[in-house]
Amino acid sequence: MNQRLIFVTNDDSYQSKGFQAAIEVARQFGKVIAVAPDTVQSGKSQAITICDTLRLKTISISDDIEIYSLNGTPVDCVKFAFDYFLKGRKVDMTISGINHGTNSAANLLYSGTMGAAIESAFYGVPSVGLSNVDHSDDADFEACIEYGIRIAKSVIDSDIRPLCLNVNVPILPANQIKGVKVCRQTKGFWVDEVLERTDPYGKSYYWFTGGFQNAEPEAVDTDEWALKSGYVSVVPVQVDLTSYKQMKAVADILE
Amino acid sequence: MNQRLIFVTNDDSYQSKGFQAAIEVARQFGKVIAVAPDTVQSGKSQAITICDTLRLKTISISDDIEIYSLNGTPVDCVKFAFDYFLKGRKVDMTISGINHGTNSAANLLYSGTMGAAIESAFYGVPSVGLSNVDHSDDADFEACIEYGIRIAKSVIDSDIRPLCLNVNVPILPANQIKGVKVCRQTKGFWVDEVLERTDPYGKSYYWFTGGFQNAEPEAVDTDEWALKSGYVSVVPVQVDLTSYKQMKAVADILE
Repeated sequence: MNQRLIFVTNDDSYQSKGFQAAIEVARQFGKVIAVAPDTVQSGKSQAITICDTLRLKTISISDDIEIYSLNGTPVDCVKFAFDYFLKGRKVDMTISGINHGTNSAANLLYSGTMGAAIESAFYGVPSVGLSNVDHSDDADFEACIEYGIRIAKSVIDSDIRPLCLNVNVPILPANQIKGVKVCRQTKGFWVDEVLERTDPYGKSYYWFTGGFQNAEPEAVDTDEWALKSGYVSVVPVQVDLTSYKQMKAVADILE
Repeated sequence: MNQRLIFVTNDDSYQSKGFQAAIEVARQFGKVIAVAPDTVQSGKSQAITICDTLRLKTISISDDIEIYSLNGTPVDCVKFAFDYFLKGRKVDMTISGINHGTNSAANLLYSGTMGAAIESAFYGVPSVGLSNVDHSDDADFEACIEYGIRIAKSVIDSDIRPLCLNVNVPILPANQIKGVKVCRQTKGFWVDEVLERTDPYGKSYYWFTGGFQNAEPEAVDTDEWALKSGYVSVVPVQVDLTSYKQMKAVADILE
């Protein structure tokens, strides 16, 4: 049997602790080739670089693990890998992450980690987007690695294709996590605050801050509920944004 | 009756021809306040600026139309407007666009125009993302404006909420367009090519190029079909990416 090939990317850059944790998950399954952003790309969603050029840098190469960086978004890294760098080679799975910070609920839409996971699935490569609810730089990734390996094994062994999973791990030691819950994306959205500050030259500049508003805090089948209840949340992801249930009503108003 | 307030943003910057076309649509319905990116933000998807600061610039102010620019993404413009600039004021509708280039099919996922339209709907403000299939800088927006006004009127008069429409207009004179089709997002994805070039200093750099692959060219209920058949395509958009039909199968493999 040929050695499997696992692709790794993320949105916190190749220098993040979570990237090393993703490599640790991926290397259990075969040769690892990673192309990750050279700078932090949090909140980059499915963004692609159209109006600028990209440059690749070799970070380290060993027999089993090759790491490169790209000055682009997470989705750029996937496209660059599958359309150029790994073109014509069979890739068995993508691990994206491990993100510092949750990608549950509406965060999925803003997430560069999940943007890359979705992009991978477009190329027919099953993907696991892994996120640690703890967003600190020195977050503990032990439970994420343990559950990441377990879930990635199920993905690579299964024949469900296309497959893209949004996996979030609560801030708990592995032995206190209750297990895995397959659940749906929680309804809700971010409410931001805009902080105004004054620069040393007297001009205003702004920062976003804010928090997620759960629109259905009572629901017990959502990823937010699973995480709050001590489970690893797993949401299977699809990319058809059509609101089928509104189609007739919209057709009626446009008549 | 109080004057209505219409918010405008886009992804091609406040200097684009399509932005002026969006203003032309919006001003039919009330006072216009626009916050648009100061540079081209094509392909920025739902990206938000987390790790950097934002600055606002006044472009022009008259009684009926106020235009500002922000050094951020389309979604940043929406958040900045609704969480700060227009905070506490009722906004009746968002017009995002008019984009130079189609946002049909999977383009919806990469589109900054549609990122902004989706973000607006999160804030409870109905939104119309308008795109011209013609991506040239000097594209003709006459048909887009005509159909944009017609569709925006239906949206503002309706009580369907939340509501976010992905509207694309084919490259045809208005009198040759056959009408409006409410349809679904076409399945498919982009296949890119990576062009390698050498800089004057002997180092490689890369550009993305490529094209959309329609995975269901025979389907007659998709936005790609509608556009090719001479209709304006209208896809009602929702933001739950859960793959409900895969939930049981995924739960089975994770047991």
